[in-house]
Amino acid sequence: MHDEKFMRAALREAARGVGHTSPNPAVGAVIVRGGRIVARGFHRRAGAPHAEIEALGELKNPAMARGATLCVTLEPCSTHGRTPPCVDAIIRAGFARVVIGTLDPNPAHAGRGVGLLRAAGLAVTAGVLESACRELNVGFNQWIVTGRPLVIAKAGLSLDGRLTRPPGEGQWLTSAAARADAMRLRAQVDAILIGAQTLRADNPRLTVRGVPGALQPWRIIVTRSGDLPAKSHVFTDAHCDRTLVFRGKSLRAVLHELGRREVTSVLIEGGGRVLGDAFDRRLVDRVHFYLAPLLCGGPVPAIGGRGVGSTKEAPHLRNPRYEKIGSALRLTAEVEYPDLK
Amino acid sequence: MHDEKFMRAALREAARGVGHTSPNPAVGAVIVRGGRIVARGFHRRAGAPHAEIEALGELKNPAMARGATLCVTLEPCSTHGRTPPCVDAIIRAGFARVVIGTLDPNPAHAGRGVGLLRAAGLAVTAGVLESACRELNVGFNQWIVTGRPLVIAKAGLSLDGRLTRPPGEGQWLTSAAARADAMRLRAQVDAILIGAQTLRADNPRLTVRGVPGALQPWRIIVTRSGDLPAKSHVFTDAHCDRTLVFRGKSLRAVLHELGRREVTSVLIEGGGRVLGDAFDRRLVDRVHFYLAPLLCGGPVPAIGGRGVGSTKEAPHLRNPRYEKIGSALRLTAEVEYPDLK
Repeated sequence: MHDEKFMRAALREAARGVGHTSPNPAVGAVIVRGGRIVARGFHRRAGAPHAEIEALGELKNPAMARGATLCVTLEPCSTHGRTPPCVDAIIRAGFARVVIGTLDPNPAHAGRGVGLLRAAGLAVTAGVLESACRELNVGFNQWIVTGRPLVIAKAGLSLDGRLTRPPGEGQWLTSAAARADAMRLRAQVDAILIGAQTLRADNPRLTVRGVPGALQPWRIIVTRSGDLPAKSHVFTDAHCDRTLVFRGKSLRAVLHELGRREVTSVLIEGGGRVLGDAFDRRLVDRVHFYLAPLLCGGPVPAIGGRGVGSTKEAPHLRNPRYEKIGSALRLTAEVEYPDLK
Repeated sequence: MHDEKFMRAALREAARGVGHTSPNPAVGAVIVRGGRIVARGFHRRAGAPHAEIEALGELKNPAMARGATLCVTLEPCSTHGRTPPCVDAIIRAGFARVVIGTLDPNPAHAGRGVGLLRAAGLAVTAGVLESACRELNVGFNQWIVTGRPLVIAKAGLSLDGRLTRPPGEGQWLTSAAARADAMRLRAQVDAILIGAQTLRADNPRLTVRGVPGALQPWRIIVTRSGDLPAKSHVFTDAHCDRTLVFRGKSLRAVLHELGRREVTSVLIEGGGRVLGDAFDRRLVDRVHFYLAPLLCGGPVPAIGGRGVGSTKEAPHLRNPRYEKIGSALRLTAEVEYPDLK
């Protein structure tokens, strides 16, 4: 119980780094003495100290770590990366106990930090609020194992699956609340991807607005023809160095290349053809849909693609969560592709 | 407060008649003496006694009505229909007070019963749990005023608005719970309508199964060509006298004709073209959708039609209610069509 209470505090610390640490995971830590939190820390950005070291630095007196408990959302690192291994620092600091949220997602490293700490005589409890700690870095966790970024499909749909946005109607989202929610989502990913058709039709900015301190994600344009309007916002605004164009490449190849460039998460924002293609190729890991209480009808679906031949082959939405945001219903879910026998 | 408690009891009575009283409304009544319910009644079917008369008949002794309160979901009738006016019987019985849920939906009659009761010296309170009492007969209320039945669009959709049901996959609904829910809906309407294409592709029974005592709604087939398989269930089963075919008529004309035949509510169950046509013509009053946690993709939308040119013209879903039924999300809502300027 107490472990969970302190892990929640560590999670709150970690959350402060979300959207800023890529290609590192967001991590938070608290130091507990006599049942009270005496220091907190979080990983601020790649290259900066890890959360454990930040928390140690917050102690009024380094000796306060002696016999104390360290509570950290992710297994402390045991290898030299851009910084020396945290496991050594934890042992040196004299902690009696370490409480860990989730093990290192990299199977090559998972459990190694725990083993080293135990070998040094520290008590270790792992797996406290594990799923919340894992969810915090869902993009990183997939990327570090597979080299492929997490792909989130974002779309605003009418309840009959359409998206009516004739020229001149501009950006379509259902309410200020939904737009703000979509901005928070952008602030959490490393890249936003759209098709050339959407660039031509909507000239979107693909910036993050209204989220203080947010970093600008990469803006990825996929195009077959390469025929893109040079005056588009993404090529001319203050973030134009954050725009990449991929011409004549499959979506799979684009994602592979993005992974190579340390992009751990990609938000596909449309259009319908690109989204459909991503589902057809089984490349989408999560959905983030805003369902508007409208019935638009007509020939243009919000999510295109060839589709599946039978419902048995259809991608399933796992753990769907529905939440009212303004007048819309937000649906977030994981995507599961059935085995094709 | 007490009025509401007794009105809830009257509503429970009324609910027993839902699906059996058409083209009359479902009505329930309780008689209250000394703060206790001493008799209950509901309208069982057109031609049978009204709820008030049923409740009076339940009294051990008719003198118990003297000075008592009658609580009834709908304003008592003041005109001779198939039965004599209830207002006369209520006055004769000696009630001191009448509590009414909702006034007569027919503007020509609304308030007349109340006026007659008050003129006879009874105390009358109207509008207790009014919206629940009105909702009970939403089909009747529309039909009696406009002559047009209430139209409910029912569909099972994947979350991207598709309905994948290749030949051989049979009826598509998401779970046993959703199927049972859909059967309860069928049991409440006067007619179920489908297009010829759905008849040919699915050969549906359009019967009510698993709802004890349910009546068989009319089964309406709309067709342009008249080319319908004679061996279809709807033409050959035990309810074949409850099947009507309309050939070469607009949906509006079909609904008008059904209204003339005292059909107060119609459930359109598909296919996508008929549903789309119904929305294009602004004929749908309510939706009853089952959203399956699937993404089917592909070219065939669950709801077809020409659609609207901009979201401003799109039918809005008012008072949407979302409920998880099995793995599906059930969406029920009223449909509102924006003014086209």
